[in-house]
Amino acid sequence: MTCVPPEAGEAVMRRLDALARFSADPGALTRLYLTPAHREAAVQVAAWMQEAGMRTSLDAAGTVVGRYEAREPGARTLLIGSHIDTIRDAGRYDGTLGVVAGIAAVAELNARGERLPFAIEVLAFGDEEGVRFPVTLTSSRALAGTVAPDALDARDGDGIGLREALAAFGGDPDGLPALARAPDAILGYLEVHIEQGPVLEAEGLPVGIVTAIAGASRFTVTVTGQAGHAGTVPMRLRRDAVAAAAEMVLAAEAVAGETPDLVATVGVVAVPQGAVNVVAGEVRFTLDVRSPSDAVRRAALDDLMQRFAAIAARRGVGLAVARGYDAPAAACAPWLQQALAEGATRLGLRPFLLPSGAGHDGLALASLCPIGMVFVRCAGGISHSPAESITAADAGVAVRLLVDVLRHLAP
Amino acid sequence: MTCVPPEAGEAVMRRLDALARFSADPGALTRLYLTPAHREAAVQVAAWMQEAGMRTSLDAAGTVVGRYEAREPGARTLLIGSHIDTIRDAGRYDGTLGVVAGIAAVAELNARGERLPFAIEVLAFGDEEGVRFPVTLTSSRALAGTVAPDALDARDGDGIGLREALAAFGGDPDGLPALARAPDAILGYLEVHIEQGPVLEAEGLPVGIVTAIAGASRFTVTVTGQAGHAGTVPMRLRRDAVAAAAEMVLAAEAVAGETPDLVATVGVVAVPQGAVNVVAGEVRFTLDVRSPSDAVRRAALDDLMQRFAAIAARRGVGLAVARGYDAPAAACAPWLQQALAEGATRLGLRPFLLPSGAGHDGLALASLCPIGMVFVRCAGGISHSPAESITAADAGVAVRLLVDVLRHLAP
Repeated sequence: MTCVPPEAGEAVMRRLDALARFSADPGALTRLYLTPAHREAAVQVAAWMQEAGMRTSLDAAGTVVGRYEAREPGARTLLIGSHIDTIRDAGRYDGTLGVVAGIAAVAELNARGERLPFAIEVLAFGDEEGVRFPVTLTSSRALAGTVAPDALDARDGDGIGLREALAAFGGDPDGLPALARAPDAILGYLEVHIEQGPVLEAEGLPVGIVTAIAGASRFTVTVTGQAGHAGTVPMRLRRDAVAAAAEMVLAAEAVAGETPDLVATVGVVAVPQGAVNVVAGEVRFTLDVRSPSDAVRRAALDDLMQRFAAIAARRGVGLAVARGYDAPAAACAPWLQQALAEGATRLGLRPFLLPSGAGHDGLALASLCPIGMVFVRCAGGISHSPAESITAADAGVAVRLLVDVLRHLAP
Repeated sequence: MTCVPPEAGEAVMRRLDALARFSADPGALTRLYLTPAHREAAVQVAAWMQEAGMRTSLDAAGTVVGRYEAREPGARTLLIGSHIDTIRDAGRYDGTLGVVAGIAAVAELNARGERLPFAIEVLAFGDEEGVRFPVTLTSSRALAGTVAPDALDARDGDGIGLREALAAFGGDPDGLPALARAPDAILGYLEVHIEQGPVLEAEGLPVGIVTAIAGASRFTVTVTGQAGHAGTVPMRLRRDAVAAAAEMVLAAEAVAGETPDLVATVGVVAVPQGAVNVVAGEVRFTLDVRSPSDAVRRAALDDLMQRFAAIAARRGVGLAVARGYDAPAAACAPWLQQALAEGATRLGLRPFLLPSGAGHDGLALASLCPIGMVFVRCAGGISHSPAESITAADAGVAVRLLVDVLRHLAP
């Protein structure tokens, strides 16, 4: 049994509450990338890192980096991170839990004067939510050397450029390329994050081990029928865009229900010229399809697009499918999944594997090094909401698991 | 064969084109109740009525009344009418065709010095579309004595009251009750109207005989599920309001498809908090159900509400159904249907019966006297649109049918 003080979970919760006070909005938690609230949170995080025995710096992309040296110089580095930016009116655990848990794990090693055969860097990224600028994962992509050349030209809703915001924050727009790490110097990347879904709660487990971060495809689908009078056009003569779209919504649900490890969501439906007494001539809806397996996602999309086309043909309506965001899945390294599973077993927990349907900084790091993720149960699966909630006990389990795995990880 | 000059249809079309120039909008046809454009159209219609040998007046509700006396004094009166108000950006045939065709029929009788055993009044109503004020059919209801006591308190979007608008137009707000006709003095009410649907076009017929004006029930349905992350909530744990609503849309379509003489329409769908990456927590949609048979409509609604409840229960979502507009059907008098069918047969046409899914002034007159309606084929079933279109030939057939039926109608 790994020795972590039982109050570790409570301490993590207190720090998460403290971070939640750094907000642009007095009544809610809103902390966007490179804002004053982000700056205040970064300063606080750096102080906690120093207290935990780490040497800290703010990197060119605004990431707070805390470094805990290895037993011997020249060893490789294990990265542990997550993000301290939030959406607007956010919960207080999404992102921050992984940063605070990482610091707590290092603090535990430091308190015992324990050095490992690898260095540790705890990373507090700033641009995971992608809310302020029309780019995302800038701070984690910088480590992988994959920031798009034009990302710095992005502007926020007030017309402020990412380049100038980064300089004002204390970062270095021109220094991003130099942040790219040499892959052979990095052992891997570990991230603790709330699940943002209801699976662990349903399983009765405090933590789970992520198999992959799902790939995602998003579409806007436009169905064009024939507008008509709701009273005068008989059912058999209708080309009703709402009814056609409804059938497509159920087709998406059916394909996802029949396919393991796939989710499909129609989250927005609009009838642009809709009226109570008009048979709809046009409907637009969004489609979001995700899977930890790119092959599964591609096959399901092929199936679904054929079903959509068949529905449109049978009903005599037009169909236009515009592809938006599209990202491949990032698999977690089997050896890190194995290490986490062995750690869970040592803590007396059933090792439980699940995919991540949401994107995370690991998506960016996956092109640099092996990644591994621990999910922590959250109440009702609710996330991206002030109602987001975890327990101190579960937070403590996550820290214990992290410390245990660090101690057993081979360099 | 009834003798009507072959150019009668062309003359009707020229008058419909002339009326279309009376509009509040230089680039489109918009002629709302009691507006200057309505006033100009009323003056023109009165002039045509006088030219056709009718004595004209403007009644207290703003209706232009043209009276053509019977062969003998003391005879009953046949009403022929429709409306000269329009929606915004309207077509030029909805309503006006019935007024112009009625005048053309009387003009034909007058040209031959022919008097019938009943008087005829051609009525150009002003408030059928119900666009300006939150009331409708005020001018036709006045004849039936069924104007709601508080209708005159209605206000338009600029805060102008119906009472003051009516007085300014030359009507008499306090005179509405006196407009109510004695039922035994009225032989019946006939109306020619464009079909506003595609059935006659599909049947290859210029005109059809209406069996009933459909009753209608409207609802706003709210489905409440559980909002969730589109990536992290597995399909089996979802309570997706969009998917539940989609199933209800298809249930409505199925019930209407299985039930003769019933139409059901979901014309508006909204996802109030919808986002591409969020499983919807709430969907609202409208439902419009119509049938010429009230019993059929009620039975279908019972069936549909049971199906909605079953869908909601199976999916674990909340269901709230708010009833809005609700109006019973108005049957056309069998003897007037018969008279119109015999007239059609005499003109060499196949008598074709169909219900009216849309409301008309006849809905108000049905509580006063027997009603009959003739539908005229319109291109593509398109109505309430500048693209609304009929042919001169079909307009001519409608006038011929009207004249023929008038000559054969027993007093």
